[in-house]
Amino acid sequence: MSTKPYKGFEPKWVKEVAPAKSYRSIFRWGDPEYVKYPKESLFKLMKEKFKMTDEDFQHYDGDIGMAEVELPQMPSNIPQKHLEALKEIVGENFVTTEDYPRLAVAYGKTGYDALRLRAGRIDSLPDVVVYPGTTEEVERIVAYVTEHGIPLYVYGGGSSVTRGVEPVKGGISLDMRKRFNKVLSFCEVDQTITVQPGISGPQLETALNEAVKRFGAKRAYTCGHFPQSFEYSSVGGWVVTRGAGQNSTYYGTISDIVLSQKYATPLGVFETSHYPREATGPDLNQLMMGSEGAFGVLTEVTLKVFRYQPENRVRFSYIFKDWETSMAAAREMMQCECGMSSVFRLSDPEETNLMLRLYNVDDTPVWNILERKGFKDMERCLFLGFTDGEKGFSKNIARNIKKIAKAAGGMSLTGMVTKSWEKGRFTDPYLRDTLLDFGVMTDTIECSVNWSNMAKVHKEVREVCHALPNTIVTTHMSHCYPQGANLYFIFITRMDDADRFKAYHATILDAIQKSGASMSHHHGIGKMFGPWLEGQLGHVEYGAIRALKEYFDKNYNLNPGGTLGLDLPESEKRYLRADKR
Amino acid sequence: MSTKPYKGFEPKWVKEVAPAKSYRSIFRWGDPEYVKYPKESLFKLMKEKFKMTDEDFQHYDGDIGMAEVELPQMPSNIPQKHLEALKEIVGENFVTTEDYPRLAVAYGKTGYDALRLRAGRIDSLPDVVVYPGTTEEVERIVAYVTEHGIPLYVYGGGSSVTRGVEPVKGGISLDMRKRFNKVLSFCEVDQTITVQPGISGPQLETALNEAVKRFGAKRAYTCGHFPQSFEYSSVGGWVVTRGAGQNSTYYGTISDIVLSQKYATPLGVFETSHYPREATGPDLNQLMMGSEGAFGVLTEVTLKVFRYQPENRVRFSYIFKDWETSMAAAREMMQCECGMSSVFRLSDPEETNLMLRLYNVDDTPVWNILERKGFKDMERCLFLGFTDGEKGFSKNIARNIKKIAKAAGGMSLTGMVTKSWEKGRFTDPYLRDTLLDFGVMTDTIECSVNWSNMAKVHKEVREVCHALPNTIVTTHMSHCYPQGANLYFIFITRMDDADRFKAYHATILDAIQKSGASMSHHHGIGKMFGPWLEGQLGHVEYGAIRALKEYFDKNYNLNPGGTLGLDLPESEKRYLRADKR
Repeated sequence: MSTKPYKGFEPKWVKEVAPAKSYRSIFRWGDPEYVKYPKESLFKLMKEKFKMTDEDFQHYDGDIGMAEVELPQMPSNIPQKHLEALKEIVGENFVTTEDYPRLAVAYGKTGYDALRLRAGRIDSLPDVVVYPGTTEEVERIVAYVTEHGIPLYVYGGGSSVTRGVEPVKGGISLDMRKRFNKVLSFCEVDQTITVQPGISGPQLETALNEAVKRFGAKRAYTCGHFPQSFEYSSVGGWVVTRGAGQNSTYYGTISDIVLSQKYATPLGVFETSHYPREATGPDLNQLMMGSEGAFGVLTEVTLKVFRYQPENRVRFSYIFKDWETSMAAAREMMQCECGMSSVFRLSDPEETNLMLRLYNVDDTPVWNILERKGFKDMERCLFLGFTDGEKGFSKNIARNIKKIAKAAGGMSLTGMVTKSWEKGRFTDPYLRDTLLDFGVMTDTIECSVNWSNMAKVHKEVREVCHALPNTIVTTHMSHCYPQGANLYFIFITRMDDADRFKAYHATILDAIQKSGASMSHHHGIGKMFGPWLEGQLGHVEYGAIRALKEYFDKNYNLNPGGTLGLDLPESEKRYLRADKR
Repeated sequence: MSTKPYKGFEPKWVKEVAPAKSYRSIFRWGDPEYVKYPKESLFKLMKEKFKMTDEDFQHYDGDIGMAEVELPQMPSNIPQKHLEALKEIVGENFVTTEDYPRLAVAYGKTGYDALRLRAGRIDSLPDVVVYPGTTEEVERIVAYVTEHGIPLYVYGGGSSVTRGVEPVKGGISLDMRKRFNKVLSFCEVDQTITVQPGISGPQLETALNEAVKRFGAKRAYTCGHFPQSFEYSSVGGWVVTRGAGQNSTYYGTISDIVLSQKYATPLGVFETSHYPREATGPDLNQLMMGSEGAFGVLTEVTLKVFRYQPENRVRFSYIFKDWETSMAAAREMMQCECGMSSVFRLSDPEETNLMLRLYNVDDTPVWNILERKGFKDMERCLFLGFTDGEKGFSKNIARNIKKIAKAAGGMSLTGMVTKSWEKGRFTDPYLRDTLLDFGVMTDTIECSVNWSNMAKVHKEVREVCHALPNTIVTTHMSHCYPQGANLYFIFITRMDDADRFKAYHATILDAIQKSGASMSHHHGIGKMFGPWLEGQLGHVEYGAIRALKEYFDKNYNLNPGGTLGLDLPESEKRYLRADKR
């Protein structure tokens, strides 16, 4: 994260480019050339928290994955006739059974995936990877797998942290990155864009920013959806998992941004309607979002787009005395009806402690002023964000936020802290790889909470996290609403075993459900959270999802093996809510 | 509408209170004591348009429904054992087989209903009316009808214009008005209220306005949902049909306002979750809204509530030169991201012609100024509304609307016209009864449209309406969004036969679908629009709704007889979209 040289001991952070076709090129985050590592003060903090010494950072903890992927023990088992059929559909060049491209789409990006790949543990592998280019090709593939009973998986951007993309039953994986990433149409009158779901965040955003040049539009537009995984996630992934961007407080989550969707299902084409609102029975758009590849393969999406007007953005940051006061202020900001801020993020004391260092506030005079003014370390809370929209709208929000923050005893730290946050917003995930080389795991769990239960969830989940050995847990509230918010837990701990990670993760997930929160605000369910879903929703409620699954895909060919818990044996399910038994 | 005496001939408008237990007390709108009739200039306009004379207004056109309801030819057919069972569940006093209470819940409020009742034509009648008081009672009733195969209907406020409440198969109707209308809880921290679905608009709004007194709250709140039927519709009806209030551009439709729902279904209790947003599979809240009593009976609803701050409201009205210019201005207001106006309503030239009279602008000097300034009758368009929310937010919207209106050549008519509109906003439905006594029918059809298709839908639907004999069709755009809006057609015509009305209505509905609009933005589907639904959504898409029906209520006991087209024979369905065949 910093290029400033260390004064003391500096670990040998892995800064080499991950070799082509290496394991590392698969499990590490994003751009193979980019590396991020902690600055010295953070490194020291970490050693202290985890009771580690420089000695622990002398040697890599296990394999760092530089070897080339070769899987002679795991050949493709797909019969030749299926291969021929797939080649006939998409063309010879877009079907492969080679080792590397198969492994490249086998895992997502949860810590469980990283730890397994670092250990060379390959639990799942597709038999064949197909790169479709058109809606019709995907429709033909879905019809083919339905006819022949072949498991079908979809790999969008691969940033899933729920084992959503993992082909646990083998079969076919559609890698959408290569060819299924085109803009299909743009409509300035309706302010919509229609895309193929394999398009990445930057591909979409660039097209919209360049709308004048690309589409002859009158002005530039933005997609409004910027998850931390923005650069390496796909629109399709956003949609089928019900994702949210960091600016969702203003722009909405993807479930607000999607106007219509087209799927290739085992029953044929399923196309939702594109009207701004309807009263024509249950909302089919909202029924397909969240289906996570289990009802059909998303082939086209129409998104609402927004005017690109960064010149109206007002950045702000405040420090509050404590969590309770700052939560109350955040709630007032959400409920006062002054309009919604775009980024809106409140860190709890433990996160604030870390973030002030991460944003380099510890290198400035502000650090000492804070203590003097009574904003005490491990009590104070950092709140930051920025507004978007028309100029007067944007200013009015910032004005109200300022008024409410001041009334709650908050002190402005100006927009500088926000700018530091912005700089790191898409690159923080790179830290995970660098730290994991020394056995320090960073991962996140998020949940959705109502205001009235926020303090309880925060307290109870953190208690459970802290009871786990050597754990830093930082928490922030983001994606806020008048009725509640997302609570985001980042845990950092010494961890070098995939199974131990899974158990650790499950313990936190249990705590989230027991505390009364919903187990996902925007990461989705996938296969990793699947065992908890029926227990969270309730038996009759969950049955509606299963009824839909059986309508669309009664033979369970689409994303089989635990997605949404749909084909899990009862014995693997977890029920934690007494009221939902 | 006016108490000003006519100068010329005045029809003998029916001003008497509808006698208790009379047919009129059932088919007429709302408060039995309240009467509204057109002022002289409007009466003259109408005669001219419909080629009617004073002679046509000398005598009532058929029966005005003053007789007492007596239905000896239509006895209740429910077996005694069922009656006993129902009495055991809700209590002796809350089960009736008497004629009047049965007929009182047999019809809704479409013109088809009014014409049938005026002609004494009773196509449907429940065998028994039950007045449940608690969630548990409703759950027991649903379990009972499921066990015994008895049709079950629900009557909320009775303002359905889709035959949604009509018990076409007899059986039981639950009349929710009497006892199922309580506030269950209020949470100021989350800004939510939980109610029984039989609660009416005013009961809910009063409770919220009086939150300080009633719930010990810190301030007053509002529900934000004000359909034209506000005074005589129920929260349950709003929810299960996906209704929208006239202020929905700011507050959202009911599908935005609902936080969670509880249903009694044949499978047991179905309770959706109450989190502000989730990524836990398909959205179950959005799956139940729009189910129109076909999946279960709604027993509890939690709604988001809003701060009551009418002091921040800014009223506006503008006149534009023509429909095209005004539509473009409205679109700019929706897309410029300055925040959303609360009421936002643009009338087309034909409606403007009528509305300027209805709002008494024809009695002021403005009337002549308009012509002089080049705002020509039957070209000019009236645009009005008001803003809500925090003061700066509200003002900023009004400021932007003014700027955009001016740039498009609009002239301000001040907030006075808006105030006139507000005065009539809940009482206009009373006009229908007064006019229908003389054979003049007023009814409405609405649809959802994208901006890019707005001009086409407006033109094509109006052409079809005008091809029908002696029809005034006024159109406005309301419930607006960045991607489109609701188009609302009000048709006024000579009409005294229910079957002719049905055919007439169907012709317009066909035109709406052919033009590419969605056939309902917020009225819902019920039994009247049921034949068109599969054709509009598509076969595979519609099948998902049927799969849910078969999951919840495989024996079709809940709201049977065509609701959402679910149990209609194929021969009665209408398919108008070639792309959805």
